[in-house]
Amino acid sequence: MSKHIGILGTGVVAQTIAPKLVELGYQVTIGTRNVTKTLAQSERNLYGGPPFKEWHKQNQKVKIGTFSDAAESGDIIFNCIKGDAVLNALKLFEAEIVNGKTVVDISNPLDFSKGMPPSLVPELINTNSLAEEIQKRLPGANVIKALNIVNCEVMVNPRKSGGDPTMFVAGNSPKAKEEVKNILNQFGWTDIIDLGDLNGARGMEMMMPIWLRVWGATQNGYFGFKIVR
Amino acid sequence: MSKHIGILGTGVVAQTIAPKLVELGYQVTIGTRNVTKTLAQSERNLYGGPPFKEWHKQNQKVKIGTFSDAAESGDIIFNCIKGDAVLNALKLFEAEIVNGKTVVDISNPLDFSKGMPPSLVPELINTNSLAEEIQKRLPGANVIKALNIVNCEVMVNPRKSGGDPTMFVAGNSPKAKEEVKNILNQFGWTDIIDLGDLNGARGMEMMMPIWLRVWGATQNGYFGFKIVR
Repeated sequence: MSKHIGILGTGVVAQTIAPKLVELGYQVTIGTRNVTKTLAQSERNLYGGPPFKEWHKQNQKVKIGTFSDAAESGDIIFNCIKGDAVLNALKLFEAEIVNGKTVVDISNPLDFSKGMPPSLVPELINTNSLAEEIQKRLPGANVIKALNIVNCEVMVNPRKSGGDPTMFVAGNSPKAKEEVKNILNQFGWTDIIDLGDLNGARGMEMMMPIWLRVWGATQNGYFGFKIVR
Repeated sequence: MSKHIGILGTGVVAQTIAPKLVELGYQVTIGTRNVTKTLAQSERNLYGGPPFKEWHKQNQKVKIGTFSDAAESGDIIFNCIKGDAVLNALKLFEAEIVNGKTVVDISNPLDFSKGMPPSLVPELINTNSLAEEIQKRLPGANVIKALNIVNCEVMVNPRKSGGDPTMFVAGNSPKAKEEVKNILNQFGWTDIIDLGDLNGARGMEMMMPIWLRVWGATQNGYFGFKIVR
């Protein structure tokens, strides 16, 4: 079992996944653009949690470093950078650092520039996806799309949806997909459908518009999609 | 209860919905571009069913007429025309015929021009939808998006998925949505989420890419999406 996991990003998704991975016995390094700035943040996170420094005091087993530190330390990397920032952020470390490593991409190409609910970035949907662009930026990595279709608390505890929803994985490396499925099992996912190659990320990312509307209609973000079959 | 339903289109979706509506006690007129040509078709339908003329012999209670006949006869109209043909087909009758009527749109803007699985027509997604374009073409109608997220046999019998999946509705007229929900209940749908105005169709139509990939991965088209919550 891979024991070191690097997490790119320090937002609420990273803050939710990191402690879960620690609980599961992994060594976790969380990476940010600028460590000093991240520790100086005074804003609460999106879910109303404490500023990063406070969160880090409560989660001291999670190491903090640069994107490069996180990418280097991890055998598996979780990309938890916000969709609109990820492609630029990935330029901040040498792509070769992650050669041969599994990169779990859980980001979504949300576009907040055209009103609410957000739409998706037109160049990153339909005949393309954010995951495929990440794979292009990190050609030696095995990018696996997963987890992007639920909120972060459901990601690490699918039962929080109130049932046993389905998770999808998509990626070009069967071996890397098995690694990711293993972690998904550890998170509690029992119904996982392998969509095949990374092209499947198109389908997964394009679920965001229905996710956003179900959230709006039910006023409840703790849900999942079950493929009834 | 509305007793007359007009169906636009004569393909497998129309051929599946029409007999179900007859069974439920509705009078049904199915509309086509050219009645003579449709009756002369020798091809089997997409699901391997008989050519239209044979189907019609087995379903004599379903009247056949032009798009205009179907649109005029129905208190409620089902749009079952293929996504790539619908906007042109709707020019073949006077939009005013359907003023004040409920139009249930179950089509998807599939684009087969860029390989398989099909993508979606770029101009009809994300910040637009086929349903919204249909509403523009039929400004006096109450367009309601429904049923487009499952195969046609599951549409009229959700239990055929093997469970109790969720159906969504979206549209600008609450009254028309109630009419459609009533028919969905008669089809067997018990878990219906109202996504709000017709903008919700964007989310529903953008589920096609994941539908197609789940179908490809499981080799099973008899499934539905359950919102586990």
